[in-house]
Amino acid sequence: MVENFIDIAKKAKQASLEIADLSSEIKNSALNKIADMIEQNKDEIFASNKQDLISAEELVSSGEISKSVYNRLKLDENKMRDMIQGIRDIANLEDPVGKILLKRKLDEDLILQKVSCPIGVLGIIFEARPDVISQISSLAIKSSNAVILKGGKESQNTNRKILEVINNALDEVAGFPKNVIQQVFSRDDVAQMLKCDNYINLIIPRGGNNLVKYIKANTSIPVLGHASGICHIFVDESADINMASSVVVDAKTQYPSACNSVETLLIHKNFAKKDELLASLQLNEIKLAANPSDWSVEYGEKTLSYKFVDSLDEAIEHINTFGSGHTDCIITKNIENAEKFMNKVDSAGVYFNVSTRFADGFRYGFGAEVGISTNKTHARGPVGLEGLTIYKYKLTGSGHIVDDYVKGRKTFHHEDLK
Amino acid sequence: MVENFIDIAKKAKQASLEIADLSSEIKNSALNKIADMIEQNKDEIFASNKQDLISAEELVSSGEISKSVYNRLKLDENKMRDMIQGIRDIANLEDPVGKILLKRKLDEDLILQKVSCPIGVLGIIFEARPDVISQISSLAIKSSNAVILKGGKESQNTNRKILEVINNALDEVAGFPKNVIQQVFSRDDVAQMLKCDNYINLIIPRGGNNLVKYIKANTSIPVLGHASGICHIFVDESADINMASSVVVDAKTQYPSACNSVETLLIHKNFAKKDELLASLQLNEIKLAANPSDWSVEYGEKTLSYKFVDSLDEAIEHINTFGSGHTDCIITKNIENAEKFMNKVDSAGVYFNVSTRFADGFRYGFGAEVGISTNKTHARGPVGLEGLTIYKYKLTGSGHIVDDYVKGRKTFHHEDLK
Repeated sequence: MVENFIDIAKKAKQASLEIADLSSEIKNSALNKIADMIEQNKDEIFASNKQDLISAEELVSSGEISKSVYNRLKLDENKMRDMIQGIRDIANLEDPVGKILLKRKLDEDLILQKVSCPIGVLGIIFEARPDVISQISSLAIKSSNAVILKGGKESQNTNRKILEVINNALDEVAGFPKNVIQQVFSRDDVAQMLKCDNYINLIIPRGGNNLVKYIKANTSIPVLGHASGICHIFVDESADINMASSVVVDAKTQYPSACNSVETLLIHKNFAKKDELLASLQLNEIKLAANPSDWSVEYGEKTLSYKFVDSLDEAIEHINTFGSGHTDCIITKNIENAEKFMNKVDSAGVYFNVSTRFADGFRYGFGAEVGISTNKTHARGPVGLEGLTIYKYKLTGSGHIVDDYVKGRKTFHHEDLK
Repeated sequence: MVENFIDIAKKAKQASLEIADLSSEIKNSALNKIADMIEQNKDEIFASNKQDLISAEELVSSGEISKSVYNRLKLDENKMRDMIQGIRDIANLEDPVGKILLKRKLDEDLILQKVSCPIGVLGIIFEARPDVISQISSLAIKSSNAVILKGGKESQNTNRKILEVINNALDEVAGFPKNVIQQVFSRDDVAQMLKCDNYINLIIPRGGNNLVKYIKANTSIPVLGHASGICHIFVDESADINMASSVVVDAKTQYPSACNSVETLLIHKNFAKKDELLASLQLNEIKLAANPSDWSVEYGEKTLSYKFVDSLDEAIEHINTFGSGHTDCIITKNIENAEKFMNKVDSAGVYFNVSTRFADGFRYGFGAEVGISTNKTHARGPVGLEGLTIYKYKLTGSGHIVDDYVKGRKTFHHEDLK
């Protein structure tokens, strides 16, 4: 019964070649079919989730998992509705594959096109959140990638059932290839996935800091994601006190466990209302930590490090030293300072008079989000469907040979078309 | 005298932050200054190269290095002229940094911009080709990246001298930061570079198959490049015999050691003129290898594997199984077959009636080339300056907070500008 990982990976590779140029129509009807069948089978899915929840209750009692892991594991009617709507939303997005990114005439009758195409096989490793399965599967289908999913063991009954429903739905869609969405369950599978650079093109970890760090350290396959989110707000000398207070309160308290929540507040020492600012934060139930032992702590709760700095330069240097390159903000009335901050801070998001909580694919208008990347290659910041694509170059001629150009019998006339 | 690698890497990181928003004017005057000073100091550079050549002659005699390595090592007036012209050409290219890739109004007074920016610190590992130093240094400067170079030991005197000239030139450019271009020399430095994911953002190996494979297997830092170039040409049933012969001869003989040369010829079994085709290749001094033991051999000389296939599908499957995802071509009169081939073959370049030798940044009109990538993320195919950039999101508001949108007091109105 237990299949060898390498066989699963080979099937994924084959599936990726078959789905690569599937029409938007078939992909979208597959997505709508999945949404329909999840809706029709939701009682069975709830029943499987119930099994996982019973096991999880014991683990909560024994302290092996936290109450928040339990809550993420639990599917309710709201999550189910969002899950189904999420799939339909992805069906309605523009197809990210087959876009002509460049069309250039190199010479008479010699036309180069740069066309977006899928990456290939994605390996997704996620913790106990069963709604991730349908979301990632939908994003993979829409972007014509095959996917191998490895979920947390706490949600394995739910995961198995959801995947069964997804694959039953896909079986009913004429022309949809086999094995586009596969699942593995063991730790050994993860170890093999990380070594499988012949067949897997991109690993996307969805989970905590430790999971992501472990994965990045143990594979030579590209990894898309972020380990930590150490976001900063710098309140400049000229900041408006009301704006500063409102933005910091939002960035810290609106959803404290989100990766785009602020962790460190830097205040210009000459900001006249600094005491008033700190008092207003405390009034909003924010615990202040001056002189923390580590300026790279991600609290995930309503605690905020703060520090007075002598200058904009010191703020920028602090952020580039201790930040995680996620999202950092300046509150100021001085536009030159804002521009300097946005140019000099080396982060995926550099914000001016705006809460860091806006760092999100939906808020940016991407429609769906794979996650947020702090990578410096491929995709950075909130990643939508575009981050699951790459491109190929199509070159069409009429027997053109390079020797003609090397010997000077012909010359290139590069001209961009359309 | 020997500096700790980690100190070099930290200085590179600092330099990368300083050069990140340097003006095009300063970068271009730095490039022109480098070109001038290389020209002025060419006799000294030739003298250093002479030292390397004397040592290399012994290694050629003892069989430790090949004659072709010796030839690549040797600088002559032509290479020197090309090297200098190459630097000036890069100065004349458009600045790849600071381009606005997306400008979107998220809501009233809330403007998102996606702006191209440098990657950070590049680690370049190259074999004995001293002209690589000036080329990569120029590309790094133009794209506002810092770079740590590790060249082959055979060319170390030449490399030291060229880098000395480059850094003397940069010292004279007002406003140009220190330590943008650094060099290391030992094998131990390479081992440390591959582990240095805190400071190095991208590794670019320039060299043979074994070098690239070793690097990919030993680092979790993203690697840009290609190990092998197993390019194919499929001659379809309906191909024109003259075009087929001319394109295959060009792709195999125009520069046999190039990575974009063809290695395997697939011929449709019903192609009427197959014997004529093979005869014409032999007339052009191509050695034919039927039934090779390995369909993934990169000959690098005028030897060509060939195979008869039953169908277009078999050709596509052969290429996706044995190819390296570099560049593959179909010769046909059947446009439907050409489209299927170009959609189904999973390679960086998919060509129709064109020699594979066109896979090249200059021929594509990129002006300068970092190399050719067979990666499936970040950059694929010939990579120009754009491949040395990523982007950041700049978000500007007037105190916007997320809570207003979550609570429904405000809603997003995504609208692309310009």
